[in-house]
Amino acid sequence: MNQDYIIPNEWSIIEEGFDNERVKSSESLFSIGNGAMGQRANFEEHYSGDTFQGSYIAGVYYPDKTRVGWWKNGYPEYFAKVLNAPSWIGINVSINGEQLDLFNCKSVDNFRRELNMKEGWLSRTFEALLQNGVKVSVETKRFLSLDHDEIGAINYNVTPLNSDADIIFQPYLDSGITNEDSNWDDKFWDTINVSHENNKAFIQAKTMKTDFYICTFMESKVFINGKSVLVEPNIKADATYASFSYKQQVKQNETYTINKFGGYTVDRNHNKNDLISAANNVLNIATSKGFDTLLEAQNKAWSKIWDMSDITIEGDVKAQQGIRFNILHLNHTYLGKDSRLNIGPKGFTGEKYGGSTYWDTEAYCIPFYMATKDQQVARNLLEYRYNHLGRAIENAEKLGFTNGAALYPMVTMNGEECHNEWEITFEEIHRNGAIAYAIFNYHRYTGDYSYIPEKGLEVLIGIARFWHQRATFSTDKNKYVILGVTGPNEYENNVNNNWYTNYIAQWCINYALENISIIKSDYGTDYTRIMNKVRLSEAEMSQWEAVADQMYFPYSEKHNVYLQQDGFLDKELITVSDLDTSQRPINQKWSWDRILRSPYIKQADTLQGFYFFEDHFSNEELERHFDFYEPYTVHESSLSPCVHSIQAAKLGRMDQAYEFYLRTSRLDLDDYNKEVEEGLHITSMAGTWMSIVEGFGGMRIKNGTLSFTPQIPKQWEAYSFKVNFRGQIIKVNACKGHTHFELEGEHDLDIIVNDKKVTISPNNLITL
Amino acid sequence: MNQDYIIPNEWSIIEEGFDNERVKSSESLFSIGNGAMGQRANFEEHYSGDTFQGSYIAGVYYPDKTRVGWWKNGYPEYFAKVLNAPSWIGINVSINGEQLDLFNCKSVDNFRRELNMKEGWLSRTFEALLQNGVKVSVETKRFLSLDHDEIGAINYNVTPLNSDADIIFQPYLDSGITNEDSNWDDKFWDTINVSHENNKAFIQAKTMKTDFYICTFMESKVFINGKSVLVEPNIKADATYASFSYKQQVKQNETYTINKFGGYTVDRNHNKNDLISAANNVLNIATSKGFDTLLEAQNKAWSKIWDMSDITIEGDVKAQQGIRFNILHLNHTYLGKDSRLNIGPKGFTGEKYGGSTYWDTEAYCIPFYMATKDQQVARNLLEYRYNHLGRAIENAEKLGFTNGAALYPMVTMNGEECHNEWEITFEEIHRNGAIAYAIFNYHRYTGDYSYIPEKGLEVLIGIARFWHQRATFSTDKNKYVILGVTGPNEYENNVNNNWYTNYIAQWCINYALENISIIKSDYGTDYTRIMNKVRLSEAEMSQWEAVADQMYFPYSEKHNVYLQQDGFLDKELITVSDLDTSQRPINQKWSWDRILRSPYIKQADTLQGFYFFEDHFSNEELERHFDFYEPYTVHESSLSPCVHSIQAAKLGRMDQAYEFYLRTSRLDLDDYNKEVEEGLHITSMAGTWMSIVEGFGGMRIKNGTLSFTPQIPKQWEAYSFKVNFRGQIIKVNACKGHTHFELEGEHDLDIIVNDKKVTISPNNLITL
Repeated sequence: MNQDYIIPNEWSIIEEGFDNERVKSSESLFSIGNGAMGQRANFEEHYSGDTFQGSYIAGVYYPDKTRVGWWKNGYPEYFAKVLNAPSWIGINVSINGEQLDLFNCKSVDNFRRELNMKEGWLSRTFEALLQNGVKVSVETKRFLSLDHDEIGAINYNVTPLNSDADIIFQPYLDSGITNEDSNWDDKFWDTINVSHENNKAFIQAKTMKTDFYICTFMESKVFINGKSVLVEPNIKADATYASFSYKQQVKQNETYTINKFGGYTVDRNHNKNDLISAANNVLNIATSKGFDTLLEAQNKAWSKIWDMSDITIEGDVKAQQGIRFNILHLNHTYLGKDSRLNIGPKGFTGEKYGGSTYWDTEAYCIPFYMATKDQQVARNLLEYRYNHLGRAIENAEKLGFTNGAALYPMVTMNGEECHNEWEITFEEIHRNGAIAYAIFNYHRYTGDYSYIPEKGLEVLIGIARFWHQRATFSTDKNKYVILGVTGPNEYENNVNNNWYTNYIAQWCINYALENISIIKSDYGTDYTRIMNKVRLSEAEMSQWEAVADQMYFPYSEKHNVYLQQDGFLDKELITVSDLDTSQRPINQKWSWDRILRSPYIKQADTLQGFYFFEDHFSNEELERHFDFYEPYTVHESSLSPCVHSIQAAKLGRMDQAYEFYLRTSRLDLDDYNKEVEEGLHITSMAGTWMSIVEGFGGMRIKNGTLSFTPQIPKQWEAYSFKVNFRGQIIKVNACKGHTHFELEGEHDLDIIVNDKKVTISPNNLITL
Repeated sequence: MNQDYIIPNEWSIIEEGFDNERVKSSESLFSIGNGAMGQRANFEEHYSGDTFQGSYIAGVYYPDKTRVGWWKNGYPEYFAKVLNAPSWIGINVSINGEQLDLFNCKSVDNFRRELNMKEGWLSRTFEALLQNGVKVSVETKRFLSLDHDEIGAINYNVTPLNSDADIIFQPYLDSGITNEDSNWDDKFWDTINVSHENNKAFIQAKTMKTDFYICTFMESKVFINGKSVLVEPNIKADATYASFSYKQQVKQNETYTINKFGGYTVDRNHNKNDLISAANNVLNIATSKGFDTLLEAQNKAWSKIWDMSDITIEGDVKAQQGIRFNILHLNHTYLGKDSRLNIGPKGFTGEKYGGSTYWDTEAYCIPFYMATKDQQVARNLLEYRYNHLGRAIENAEKLGFTNGAALYPMVTMNGEECHNEWEITFEEIHRNGAIAYAIFNYHRYTGDYSYIPEKGLEVLIGIARFWHQRATFSTDKNKYVILGVTGPNEYENNVNNNWYTNYIAQWCINYALENISIIKSDYGTDYTRIMNKVRLSEAEMSQWEAVADQMYFPYSEKHNVYLQQDGFLDKELITVSDLDTSQRPINQKWSWDRILRSPYIKQADTLQGFYFFEDHFSNEELERHFDFYEPYTVHESSLSPCVHSIQAAKLGRMDQAYEFYLRTSRLDLDDYNKEVEEGLHITSMAGTWMSIVEGFGGMRIKNGTLSFTPQIPKQWEAYSFKVNFRGQIIKVNACKGHTHFELEGEHDLDIIVNDKKVTISPNNLITL
């Protein structure tokens, strides 16, 4: 871990010095996105060293034929792969006939890369001495516009430093791309046509099988010392490629500049026959505004995002950089405008894992989006699942369930399951619980009950039906049991009575019954509509009730804790601290069977239940379970440290909470898992946000009231965050010994601070 | 099941009438082999319909890169695939310029295929009306010589029935073949050269990666009405192919015949540079003897095999055909001459599963080979594992074991593990037990202890070390437990304390300790040699002892049975008879998770332990366990019915025993599993033999004495079998109400019949 080459800075991610060994890692870390598209920080100019090229369009995927060694019934036929899209960022640069290529220069000096988080752009500067002896200074800047999310812009400047030079800029579009993460090296894209007109070029392509139609496009302008010059481009085009070459004699110390605009129009937003004309419109907007105007708008748009979602930390630059890095990338990935999209585990920074939607969305991401965006954003995320309910029912049917039981997929793009390890796909069924929990969480936070009668109840009924059918009665235990599951701890497979799963199953049934009863009495029309649709009888409901009432929970009298699963105590209970460090990470050092029979926990499992349902347990119970399980937890999932940070803070163990915070917030920046080159861990970034707001800030909703118990790590002077709560914005600024609260809104708000009720008024700072 | 097109016949497998839908099934059923090579019953002439071409050479394999969806630590890099070898059987036949092709005739009449089990040959006759109007009668016969196991011979006759005809026989060799069962469509063979000389042709080829060198070859002679004719062949050869065309004008009702000899010379038996000259010698032998002389020798060789291994059944043709079919194919697959070879699960009849060696060899096949072959054959099978001990230790090291612990592979060709499902590869560790058990079984049967001090003890020590390390102490149970295994019932994965596994683990340790002690006192030199090699301390042995002494066995007081695994009683215990038949076979109808949490058992698991260690349990215990587990057993493994047949017979339940017998003996003939086209279930065929000899005949070894408790199914009049016991041959002929015993040997032998000691004398039939 700890590659430690990113320079600590409050507002920027900065790399200095060129090292070709770091190119792929930096391509991930410096990725950019605007919710609609995103890209790894690949160089614009040709690079012949090791690189992982990636440009992605939200919602565009390919069902790649499943690859397994031994087929098992129930496996999905296809895995929805995040698709590397036709690329528009490329600008080949030729200097006196030699192609600029950082892998092939005599020297590269003063290399500096910056991802400016505050303003939302990526830049690169360097001086390169070419093999032909020409030395050039290069400065580039690029961004993906938040205001016009089909526009990307690049400003690329070359200054010959030691002689005059013939310089050619050759911006291009390329649809002859491949996927790193392809199962069978299939071709994923079909190029429909390549066209150009004046300085504009267009490539229309469609995905194989899924038939997503897209158009990528570009238009460029060139300048000498900032003055527009008209150069007649030399045009090249073939079946999957189009380029314009802008050649210019450039004097020593003169700067030759190209501004390139590009992006995608897609058939999710346009008629598929209008993609070129839509692209043409986009280019007209871009060129008429120009790079600087667009950049100015970009600064403003990001400033708006930061205004709401920034967390400041005083006295700890690395911690500050870490949290902003997390918030930045969450906003790169998902802005919540479109309920057809979701939050991919690698966002637009890589392809690994595939799919865009995991239980991560409901279990980890929704709190961030609820608190930092408009309430509609979280509702869009809920509706995404409502829209996939039919598919979840089909998915359950494939596994033998009936009567409208719904099993949401482990991984999906369109509602279909596309993951294929039986021990996860078929058995990690607790994901269904998180989807119900998100409905509860949304209502608890926003106070908006309307979603449940309108849509949520159908989801809750499908999920309750699943749990009812999935639990079986053990005559031996005289209880309902849930056999053969994988809990949140994926280091145990096919276990019986995973406590977390049993607990959330029981809760789901009870929550569904409770809402059925509310809607029956208060929302009669909805009740009739829903009951006509789902055909739910009293008899079936009382069967649900029996399952919930008689659910079995493994418990150890000796340790006075719930057992993670039936067989946990049979394991050799050697704590992580007694494990030789040469054995870690166990997922790299140990064979799978050894991991499975070990007591080591990948991420919060029983403690995840204590996190979701903390009101059901006393602090003493939490402490006992934390002290029992945490010592066996290896935190080899990106989703582990955040929950532990929150729990440690709740127990007042601030040193431990801070440790976990650093680990979650700088997971990618410091490359704890030695894999950042594959892409970033987007969904756990929302967990980082929770670590501060819910962990250190102690934010909770108690009977509809916002509550805080602020604490501060000793390493920090102060920290602050804002939350959007039911239409008003509360700013919390915690310092050593006291905390300031401020309200941006219209009317007084009661909050609870350290268990005492306080009323805060608009624009009236109070300190407690 | 029950395709039911094979005509019942005591000595032959017969198919009448041509049906292209049955071609692949028949290619499996009519396969032939001679231990050194084997082939599916592909037609000699071209066939354009659906066919699965397969020709295999013992011991020649390819390490095919492993294919998985998600890589897990510990997976082997390669899977040893049974390799489709260059083909020598092909004879294209052209009649008046039209290629003879049964898929493309106007009509095919009187089609008859026969696998003559008594004499060891395969024949085919038919009349075909070609598209060009010529009607021909065709008769073919072929065999793979037992006496010269590098020789195969084909006699192919064509008689034009309605006109004269120009007929061309084009025998060929072809190394441009592929594997059905390839992971990545890699090329497996490299052709080194193609050569010909007079009427002989040779193709030398080597396998990629494994560098097995082979030469395939052919030589042909043609005849008119049985009289040799000299035809100057037209020769064609390219990089992977050689053919000779023998053209002849044939009069109506004259018979044009080709005798083709072919086969393989391989570098396991020759210097790789001498393969062509060796092939030349083989062809000289074949042609000088000629087809008829070779066939006569074949009859004699098979008559010798049958003389020793035949089982006769009177009054039940299907049962008779079934058992002979099983014995035939076992002899096709493995004759025991070479300790580098083993018994592949599909023999030479297909490619599925890969590898040549499973625990099937030790658990199911060794009894057959011990009783029907010379004792050296079983010893060769034991030595095969001794020779792989180093690899078994490496395999265990890959999973984290140390200090010489040995884990034999689940599937192998050369001792390396090549199977890759974690729940089987890493967890189906009971296979180690069968390998130790085979040593015990060999000694028990043959009385030959010498193998254990010479070689076996090292294997037993490696295996005991594995169990010692694999068991862990549960402080909760205050016993040693074995967590995370898959037992013989592969319909439960990653379970704790599989009774069979725990039991055989305990037995292995005790058996190793017992033998160490014997060898220490009686074989001092071996003891010193072995201890110097394995460095086994008293301290380590007492740790083993502790594990064996304190092994945990799950037990139900309520049901008074050992539990198959810790969680068995939590399942919904609905018997198979209460399961809707539409749900079966569950491995085709249910998703994997549903199978896993069901109580349904694929093959004997607890009952497998009762089979191996029957002296450890009373008949009442057996009955209780049989009655508890059999009702949940779906017998979806080919290895299940035989053990149940033996156990049912032991309990005097002859109707049930007979049912299971039919199922095991006609598994492939009646295609119970609807997959016979992929190849036959060779290893379970040895279980069929056990069903009669150990089941109905009740044969056991009790304190070194052969014991029988003959029973007879009511459907039969009589049955007989022979066993080779310590150098003498005992023939048992069981009739209704009495049994005859005969001894071929030199000296009197005490046997036990129905618990009474009887002395039998050479050549003196006694009836009891």
